[in-house]
Amino acid sequence: MASFTFFTNPMSRGQIARWALHEAGVDYETVLVDWQAKPEALLSANPMGKVPTIVHHAEDGDHVVSEAAAICLYLAEVSPFEALTPRDAERAAYLRWTFFAAGPVEQAITARSLGFEPKAQQQAMAGFGSYERAVDTLAGHFALNDYVCGDRFTMADVYVGSQVDWGLMFKSLPERPEFLAYAERLRARPAYQEAKAVDADLIAQAQS
Amino acid sequence: MASFTFFTNPMSRGQIARWALHEAGVDYETVLVDWQAKPEALLSANPMGKVPTIVHHAEDGDHVVSEAAAICLYLAEVSPFEALTPRDAERAAYLRWTFFAAGPVEQAITARSLGFEPKAQQQAMAGFGSYERAVDTLAGHFALNDYVCGDRFTMADVYVGSQVDWGLMFKSLPERPEFLAYAERLRARPAYQEAKAVDADLIAQAQS
Repeated sequence: MASFTFFTNPMSRGQIARWALHEAGVDYETVLVDWQAKPEALLSANPMGKVPTIVHHAEDGDHVVSEAAAICLYLAEVSPFEALTPRDAERAAYLRWTFFAAGPVEQAITARSLGFEPKAQQQAMAGFGSYERAVDTLAGHFALNDYVCGDRFTMADVYVGSQVDWGLMFKSLPERPEFLAYAERLRARPAYQEAKAVDADLIAQAQS
Repeated sequence: MASFTFFTNPMSRGQIARWALHEAGVDYETVLVDWQAKPEALLSANPMGKVPTIVHHAEDGDHVVSEAAAICLYLAEVSPFEALTPRDAERAAYLRWTFFAAGPVEQAITARSLGFEPKAQQQAMAGFGSYERAVDTLAGHFALNDYVCGDRFTMADVYVGSQVDWGLMFKSLPERPEFLAYAERLRARPAYQEAKAVDADLIAQAQS
Protein backbone atom coordinates (compact mmCIF):
# COMPACT_ATOMS: atom_id res chain seq x y z
CA MET A 1 0.00 0.00 0.00
CA ALA A 2 1.26 3.47 -0.85
CA SER A 3 1.93 5.90 2.01
CA PHE A 4 -0.72 8.32 0.73
CA THR A 5 -4.11 8.06 -0.93
CA PHE A 6 -4.71 11.11 -3.10
CA PHE A 7 -8.28 12.00 -4.04
CA THR A 8 -8.26 14.36 -6.97
CA ASN A 9 -9.64 15.45 -10.27
CA PRO A 10 -7.07 16.50 -12.85
CA MET A 11 -9.00 19.67 -13.68
CA SER A 12 -9.00 21.10 -10.17
CA ARG A 13 -6.88 22.50 -7.37
CA GLY A 14 -5.78 18.88 -7.08
CA GLN A 15 -2.93 19.89 -9.40
CA ILE A 16 -1.45 21.89 -6.52
CA ALA A 17 -1.46 18.85 -4.24
CA ARG A 18 0.04 16.58 -6.92
CA TRP A 19 2.92 19.01 -7.40
CA ALA A 20 3.42 19.02 -3.60
CA LEU A 21 3.40 15.20 -3.53
CA HIS A 22 6.14 15.13 -6.16
CA GLU A 23 8.22 17.78 -4.36
CA ALA A 24 7.85 15.81 -1.13
CA GLY A 25 9.02 12.63 -2.85
CA VAL A 26 6.42 10.41 -1.21
CA ASP A 27 4.64 7.45 -2.82
CA TYR A 28 0.94 7.85 -3.40
CA GLU A 29 -2.00 6.19 -5.03
CA THR A 30 -4.37 8.40 -7.01
CA VAL A 31 -8.15 8.01 -6.74
CA LEU A 32 -9.89 9.99 -9.46
CA VAL A 33 -13.06 11.67 -8.25
CA ASP A 34 -16.05 12.04 -10.52
CA TRP A 35 -18.00 15.17 -9.48
CA GLN A 36 -21.29 13.33 -9.97
CA ALA A 37 -20.45 10.15 -8.05
CA LYS A 38 -18.01 10.83 -5.26
CA PRO A 39 -16.38 7.73 -3.75
CA GLU A 40 -17.50 6.71 -0.26
CA ALA A 41 -13.87 6.65 0.92
CA LEU A 42 -13.60 10.35 0.10
CA LEU A 43 -16.89 11.29 1.74
CA SER A 44 -15.97 9.49 4.93
CA ALA A 45 -12.57 11.25 5.01
CA ASN A 46 -13.99 14.64 4.07
CA PRO A 47 -17.75 15.15 4.31
CA MET A 48 -17.57 18.14 1.93
CA GLY A 49 -16.21 15.73 -0.69
CA LYS A 50 -13.71 18.35 -1.79
CA VAL A 51 -10.67 17.57 -3.84
CA PRO A 52 -7.82 17.59 -3.24
CA THR A 53 -7.94 15.48 -0.09
CA ILE A 54 -5.09 13.24 1.00
CA VAL A 55 -5.04 10.40 3.51
CA HIS A 56 -1.65 9.72 5.08
CA HIS A 57 -1.36 6.08 6.09
CA ALA A 58 1.08 6.69 8.92
CA GLU A 59 2.40 4.24 11.49
CA ASP A 60 0.08 5.70 14.13
CA GLY A 61 -3.00 5.59 11.92
CA ASP A 62 -4.64 7.38 9.00
CA HIS A 63 -4.51 11.18 8.89
CA VAL A 64 -6.78 13.15 6.58
CA VAL A 65 -5.76 16.53 5.18
CA SER A 66 -7.87 18.73 2.95
CA GLU A 67 -7.40 22.35 1.79
CA ALA A 68 -4.65 22.64 -0.78
CA ALA A 69 -2.47 24.91 1.36
CA ALA A 70 -2.73 22.61 4.38
CA ILE A 71 -1.80 19.64 2.19
CA CYS A 72 1.35 21.43 1.01
CA LEU A 73 2.51 22.34 4.52
CA TYR A 74 1.69 18.89 5.87
CA LEU A 75 3.64 17.15 3.12
CA ALA A 76 6.65 19.37 3.80
CA GLU A 77 6.63 18.30 7.44
CA VAL A 78 6.50 14.58 6.70
CA SER A 79 8.78 14.65 3.65
CA PRO A 80 12.34 13.30 3.87
CA PHE A 81 13.46 16.53 2.18
CA GLU A 82 14.01 18.93 5.07
CA ALA A 83 14.83 21.79 2.74
CA LEU A 84 11.12 22.08 1.96
CA THR A 85 10.43 23.38 5.47
CA PRO A 86 11.51 26.82 6.66
CA ARG A 87 14.61 27.54 8.69
CA ASP A 88 13.95 29.51 11.87
CA ALA A 89 14.51 32.86 10.21
CA GLU A 90 12.19 31.90 7.33
CA ARG A 91 9.18 30.80 9.39
CA ALA A 92 7.51 34.20 9.45
CA ALA A 93 7.51 34.60 5.66
CA TYR A 94 6.57 30.94 5.13
CA LEU A 95 3.40 31.21 7.21
CA ARG A 96 2.54 34.81 6.38
CA TRP A 97 2.51 34.41 2.60
CA THR A 98 0.90 30.99 2.58
CA PHE A 99 -2.03 32.36 4.58
CA PHE A 100 -2.07 35.54 2.55
CA ALA A 101 -2.42 33.50 -0.65
CA ALA A 102 -5.01 31.13 0.87
CA GLY A 103 -7.04 33.96 2.37
CA PRO A 104 -6.99 37.45 0.87
CA VAL A 105 -5.63 36.52 -2.57
CA GLU A 106 -7.99 33.57 -3.03
CA GLN A 107 -10.90 35.65 -1.79
CA ALA A 108 -10.07 38.64 -3.99
CA ILE A 109 -9.70 36.49 -7.11
CA THR A 110 -12.88 34.52 -6.41
CA ALA A 111 -14.92 37.62 -5.68
CA ARG A 112 -13.79 39.29 -8.89
CA SER A 113 -14.24 36.13 -10.98
CA LEU A 114 -17.79 35.74 -9.72
CA GLY A 115 -18.57 39.35 -10.46
CA PHE A 116 -18.71 40.52 -6.88
CA GLU A 117 -16.48 43.13 -5.31
CA PRO A 118 -16.90 44.85 -1.97
CA LYS A 119 -17.65 48.54 -2.06
CA ALA A 120 -15.22 50.99 -0.45
CA GLN A 121 -17.04 51.03 2.89
CA GLN A 122 -17.13 47.22 2.99
CA GLN A 123 -13.40 46.72 2.43
CA ALA A 124 -12.32 46.87 6.05
CA MET A 125 -14.80 44.15 6.85
CA ALA A 126 -13.83 41.97 3.92
CA GLY A 127 -10.38 40.98 5.25
CA PHE A 128 -8.89 41.08 1.77
CA GLY A 129 -9.52 44.80 1.32
CA SER A 130 -9.67 45.14 -2.42
CA TYR A 131 -8.40 43.10 -5.34
CA GLU A 132 -5.88 45.81 -6.20
CA ARG A 133 -4.42 46.00 -2.70
CA ALA A 134 -4.07 42.24 -2.39
CA VAL A 135 -2.39 41.98 -5.81
CA ASP A 136 -0.07 44.92 -5.11
CA THR A 137 0.99 43.43 -1.80
CA LEU A 138 1.78 40.05 -3.34
CA ALA A 139 3.63 41.59 -6.29
CA GLY A 140 5.57 43.79 -3.88
CA HIS A 141 7.00 40.72 -2.18
CA PHE A 142 8.16 39.15 -5.44
CA ALA A 143 9.65 42.41 -6.65
CA LEU A 144 12.18 41.99 -3.84
CA ASN A 145 12.37 38.20 -3.43
CA ASP A 146 12.78 35.24 -5.78
CA TYR A 147 10.75 32.98 -3.51
CA VAL A 148 8.37 33.18 -0.55
CA CYS A 149 11.25 32.75 1.90
CA GLY A 150 13.73 34.92 0.03
CA ASP A 151 16.38 33.29 -2.09
CA ARG A 152 15.44 29.64 -1.92
CA PHE A 153 12.47 27.44 -2.74
CA THR A 154 10.31 25.96 0.03
CA MET A 155 6.96 24.19 0.06
CA ALA A 156 5.24 27.55 0.55
CA ASP A 157 6.13 28.25 -3.08
CA VAL A 158 4.04 25.31 -4.23
CA TYR A 159 0.92 26.92 -2.82
CA VAL A 160 1.69 30.61 -3.32
CA GLY A 161 3.28 29.84 -6.68
CA SER A 162 0.24 27.88 -7.81
CA GLN A 163 -1.96 30.86 -7.07
CA VAL A 164 0.33 33.00 -9.24
CA ASP A 165 0.71 30.33 -11.97
CA TRP A 166 -3.06 29.73 -12.20
CA GLY A 167 -3.80 33.43 -11.92
CA LEU A 168 -1.61 34.11 -14.95
CA MET A 169 -3.07 31.21 -16.93
CA PHE A 170 -6.68 32.13 -16.24
CA LYS A 171 -5.96 35.86 -16.41
CA SER A 172 -7.34 36.38 -12.94
CA LEU A 173 -4.01 37.99 -12.00
CA PRO A 174 -2.37 40.72 -14.08
CA GLU A 175 0.79 39.92 -16.09
CA ARG A 176 3.12 41.80 -13.79
CA PRO A 177 6.82 41.14 -14.50
CA GLU A 178 7.31 39.97 -10.89
CA PHE A 179 4.60 37.33 -11.29
CA LEU A 180 5.87 36.19 -14.71
CA ALA A 181 9.45 35.77 -13.48
CA TYR A 182 8.33 33.90 -10.37
CA ALA A 183 6.12 31.55 -12.39
CA GLU A 184 9.00 30.84 -14.80
CA ARG A 185 11.26 29.82 -11.92
CA LEU A 186 8.64 27.42 -10.64
CA ARG A 187 7.75 25.91 -14.02
CA ALA A 188 11.42 24.93 -14.42
CA ARG A 189 11.29 22.57 -11.45
CA PRO A 190 11.36 18.83 -12.27
CA ALA A 191 8.62 18.04 -9.73
CA TYR A 192 6.35 20.69 -11.26
CA GLN A 193 6.89 19.24 -14.73
CA GLU A 194 6.36 15.63 -13.62
CA ALA A 195 3.16 16.44 -11.77
CA LYS A 196 1.70 18.60 -14.53
CA ALA A 197 2.48 15.87 -17.10
CA VAL A 198 0.48 13.33 -15.09
CA ASP A 199 -2.54 15.64 -14.90
CA ALA A 200 -2.24 16.58 -18.57
CA ASP A 201 -2.32 12.87 -19.49
CA LEU A 202 -5.37 12.29 -17.32
CA ILE A 203 -7.16 15.24 -18.89
CA ALA A 204 -6.29 13.98 -22.38
CA GLN A 205 -7.57 10.49 -21.52
CA ALA A 206 -10.82 11.89 -20.17
CA GLN A 207 -11.37 13.90 -23.34
CA SER A 208 -10.47 11.14 -25.82
CA MET B 1 12.62 46.25 24.32
CA ALA B 2 9.85 43.68 24.25
CA SER B 3 10.30 40.58 22.07
CA PHE B 4 7.29 41.51 19.94
CA THR B 5 5.73 44.68 18.61
CA PHE B 6 2.00 44.20 18.15
CA PHE B 7 0.12 46.53 15.79
CA THR B 8 -3.56 46.34 16.50
CA ASN B 9 -6.86 48.02 16.95
CA PRO B 10 -8.98 46.70 19.83
CA MET B 11 -12.07 46.49 17.59
CA SER B 12 -10.57 44.19 14.99
CA ARG B 13 -9.22 40.71 14.30
CA GLY B 14 -6.34 41.98 16.43
CA GLN B 15 -8.20 40.41 19.34
CA ILE B 16 -7.30 37.00 17.90
CA ALA B 17 -3.60 37.85 17.87
CA ARG B 18 -3.68 39.28 21.40
CA TRP B 19 -5.22 36.06 22.69
CA ALA B 20 -2.47 34.14 20.86
CA LEU B 21 0.22 36.38 22.41
CA HIS B 22 -1.15 35.63 25.88
CA GLU B 23 -1.36 31.87 25.22
CA ALA B 24 2.23 31.96 23.93
CA GLY B 25 3.39 33.74 27.07
CA VAL B 26 5.66 36.16 25.23
CA ASP B 27 6.26 39.81 26.10
CA TYR B 28 4.96 42.36 23.65
CA GLU B 29 4.47 46.07 23.21
CA THR B 30 1.16 47.22 21.75
CA VAL B 31 1.00 49.93 19.10
CA LEU B 32 -2.58 51.10 18.60
CA VAL B 33 -3.41 51.78 14.99
CA ASP B 34 -5.77 54.56 14.00
CA TRP B 35 -7.51 53.63 10.72
CA GLN B 36 -7.12 57.18 9.46
CA ALA B 37 -3.44 57.69 10.28
CA LYS B 38 -1.52 54.43 10.14
CA PRO B 39 1.95 54.53 11.69
CA GLU B 40 4.92 54.45 9.33
CA ALA B 41 6.39 51.49 11.25
CA LEU B 42 3.32 49.45 10.37
CA LEU B 43 3.27 50.46 6.71
CA SER B 44 6.92 49.57 6.28
CA ALA B 45 6.32 46.17 7.91
CA ASN B 46 3.09 45.51 6.03
CA PRO B 47 2.28 47.70 3.01
CA MET B 48 -1.43 46.79 3.25
CA GLY B 49 -1.39 48.37 6.71
CA LYS B 50 -3.55 45.55 8.02
CA VAL B 51 -3.97 44.79 11.67
CA PRO B 52 -3.07 42.57 13.33
CA THR B 53 0.58 42.59 12.31
CA ILE B 54 3.36 41.49 14.64
CA VAL B 55 7.09 42.09 14.43
CA HIS B 56 9.22 39.50 16.20
CA HIS B 57 12.49 41.04 17.36
CA ALA B 58 14.48 37.80 17.20
CA GLU B 59 18.21 37.27 17.67
CA ASP B 60 18.67 36.91 13.93
CA GLY B 61 16.67 40.02 13.05
CA ASP B 62 13.12 41.30 12.83
CA HIS B 63 10.44 39.03 11.40
CA VAL B 64 7.08 40.38 10.30
CA VAL B 65 3.92 38.26 10.40
CA SER B 66 0.49 39.35 9.27
CA GLU B 67 -2.73 37.37 8.75
CA ALA B 68 -4.30 36.37 12.06
CA ALA B 69 -3.99 32.63 11.40
CA ALA B 70 -0.31 32.92 10.47
CA ILE B 71 0.33 34.95 13.61
CA CYS B 72 -1.22 32.21 15.76
CA LEU B 73 0.82 29.42 14.19
CA TYR B 74 4.02 31.46 14.28
CA LEU B 75 3.59 32.28 17.95
CA ALA B 76 3.04 28.61 18.78
CA GLU B 77 6.34 27.74 17.11
CA VAL B 78 8.37 30.35 19.01
CA SER B 79 6.54 30.00 22.33
CA PRO B 80 8.22 28.26 25.26
CA PHE B 81 4.98 26.27 25.68
CA GLU B 82 5.47 23.26 23.41
CA ALA B 83 1.99 21.97 24.14
CA LEU B 84 0.62 24.68 21.84
CA THR B 85 2.08 22.94 18.79
CA PRO B 86 0.73 19.65 17.45
CA ARG B 87 2.19 16.24 18.16
CA ASP B 88 2.96 14.20 15.04
CA ALA B 89 -0.44 12.52 15.00
CA GLU B 90 -2.18 15.90 15.42
CA ARG B 91 -0.46 17.77 12.58
CA ALA B 92 -3.04 16.88 9.95
CA ALA B 93 -5.99 18.21 11.94
CA TYR B 94 -4.00 21.24 13.12
CA LEU B 95 -3.25 22.42 9.57
CA ARG B 96 -6.46 21.22 7.96
CA TRP B 97 -8.85 23.04 10.25
CA THR B 98 -6.77 26.20 10.55
CA PHE B 99 -6.77 26.58 6.77
CA PHE B 100 -10.41 25.55 6.59
CA ALA B 101 -11.33 28.35 9.01
CA ALA B 102 -9.04 30.90 7.30
CA GLY B 103 -10.26 30.00 3.83
CA PRO B 104 -13.73 28.51 3.26
CA VAL B 105 -15.29 29.57 6.59
CA GLU B 106 -13.96 33.14 6.40
CA GLN B 107 -15.01 33.40 2.77
CA ALA B 108 -18.48 31.96 3.38
CA ILE B 109 -19.14 34.30 6.32
CA THR B 110 -17.80 37.37 4.50
CA ALA B 111 -19.76 36.62 1.34
CA ARG B 112 -22.99 36.19 3.29
CA SER B 113 -22.37 39.26 5.49
CA LEU B 114 -21.80 41.41 2.42
CA GLY B 115 -24.94 40.12 0.78
CA PHE B 116 -23.23 38.03 -1.85
CA GLU B 117 -23.55 34.29 -2.26
CA PRO B 118 -22.46 32.16 -5.18
CA LYS B 119 -25.21 30.52 -7.21
CA ALA B 120 -25.34 26.72 -7.41
CA GLN B 121 -23.31 26.55 -10.62
CA GLN B 122 -20.63 28.83 -9.15
CA GLN B 123 -20.07 26.79 -5.99
CA ALA B 124 -17.42 24.43 -7.35
CA MET B 125 -15.42 27.44 -8.46
CA ALA B 126 -15.84 29.32 -5.22
CA GLY B 127 -13.78 26.83 -3.21
CA PHE B 128 -15.92 27.24 -0.11
CA GLY B 129 -18.90 25.68 -1.83
CA SER B 130 -21.78 27.17 0.07
CA TYR B 131 -22.22 28.73 3.49
CA GLU B 132 -24.29 25.75 4.62
CA ARG B 133 -21.71 23.15 3.57
CA ALA B 134 -18.85 25.03 5.20
CA VAL B 135 -20.80 25.45 8.44
CA ASP B 136 -21.95 21.82 8.46
CA THR B 137 -18.42 20.58 7.94
CA LEU B 138 -17.04 22.69 10.79
CA ALA B 139 -19.89 21.73 13.14
CA GLY B 140 -19.36 18.08 12.20
CA HIS B 141 -15.82 18.21 13.53
CA PHE B 142 -16.85 19.71 16.86
CA ALA B 143 -19.71 17.26 17.24
CA LEU B 144 -17.01 14.59 17.59
CA ASN B 145 -14.08 16.52 19.08
CA ASP B 146 -13.63 18.97 21.94
CA TYR B 147 -10.80 20.77 20.16
CA VAL B 148 -9.25 21.07 16.70
CA CYS B 149 -6.75 18.31 17.50
CA GLY B 150 -9.17 16.10 19.41
CA ASP B 151 -9.09 16.10 23.18
CA ARG B 152 -6.62 18.85 23.94
CA PHE B 153 -6.18 22.55 23.25
CA THR B 154 -3.54 23.74 20.75
CA MET B 155 -2.87 27.09 19.12
CA ALA B 156 -5.11 26.09 16.22
CA ASP B 157 -8.02 26.58 18.62
CA VAL B 158 -7.15 30.25 19.04
CA TYR B 159 -7.77 30.84 15.36
CA VAL B 160 -10.54 28.34 14.64
CA GLY B 161 -12.11 29.10 18.01
CA SER B 162 -12.06 32.82 17.34
CA GLN B 163 -13.96 32.26 14.11
CA VAL B 164 -16.57 30.33 16.08
CA ASP B 165 -16.60 32.78 19.01
CA TRP B 166 -16.98 35.83 16.74
CA GLY B 167 -19.43 34.03 14.52
CA LEU B 168 -21.68 33.38 17.52
CA MET B 169 -21.33 36.95 18.82
CA PHE B 170 -22.07 38.60 15.50
CA LYS B 171 -24.65 35.97 14.56
CA SER B 172 -22.78 35.15 11.37
CA LEU B 173 -22.67 31.52 12.51
CA PRO B 174 -25.75 29.63 13.73
CA GLU B 175 -26.10 28.77 17.43
CA ARG B 176 -25.39 25.09 16.98
CA PRO B 177 -24.84 23.23 20.27
CA GLU B 178 -21.40 22.07 19.04
CA PHE B 179 -20.32 25.67 18.47
CA LEU B 180 -21.72 26.89 21.79
CA ALA B 181 -19.98 24.16 23.78
CA TYR B 182 -16.67 24.75 21.98
CA ALA B 183 -16.84 28.50 22.59
CA GLU B 184 -17.59 27.93 26.27
CA ARG B 185 -14.48 25.78 26.64
CA LEU B 186 -12.35 28.49 25.07
CA ARG B 187 -13.85 31.40 27.02
CA ALA B 188 -12.87 29.62 30.24
CA ARG B 189 -9.15 29.87 29.42
CA PRO B 190 -7.14 32.36 31.50
CA ALA B 191 -5.24 33.68 28.45
CA TYR B 192 -8.53 34.31 26.63
CA GLN B 193 -9.90 36.25 29.60
CA GLU B 194 -6.71 38.29 30.10
CA ALA B 195 -6.48 39.25 26.44
CA LYS B 196 -10.16 40.13 26.10
CA ALA B 197 -9.96 42.27 29.25
CA VAL B 198 -7.12 44.32 27.75
CA ASP B 199 -9.08 44.94 24.54
CA ALA B 200 -12.26 45.71 26.45
CA ASP B 201 -10.38 48.35 28.47
CA LEU B 202 -8.94 49.90 25.32
CA ILE B 203 -12.39 50.04 23.74
CA ALA B 204 -13.84 51.64 26.87
CA GLN B 205 -11.05 54.25 26.94
CA ALA B 206 -11.58 55.08 23.28
CA GLN B 207 -15.29 55.59 23.85
CA SER B 208 -14.99 57.64 27.06
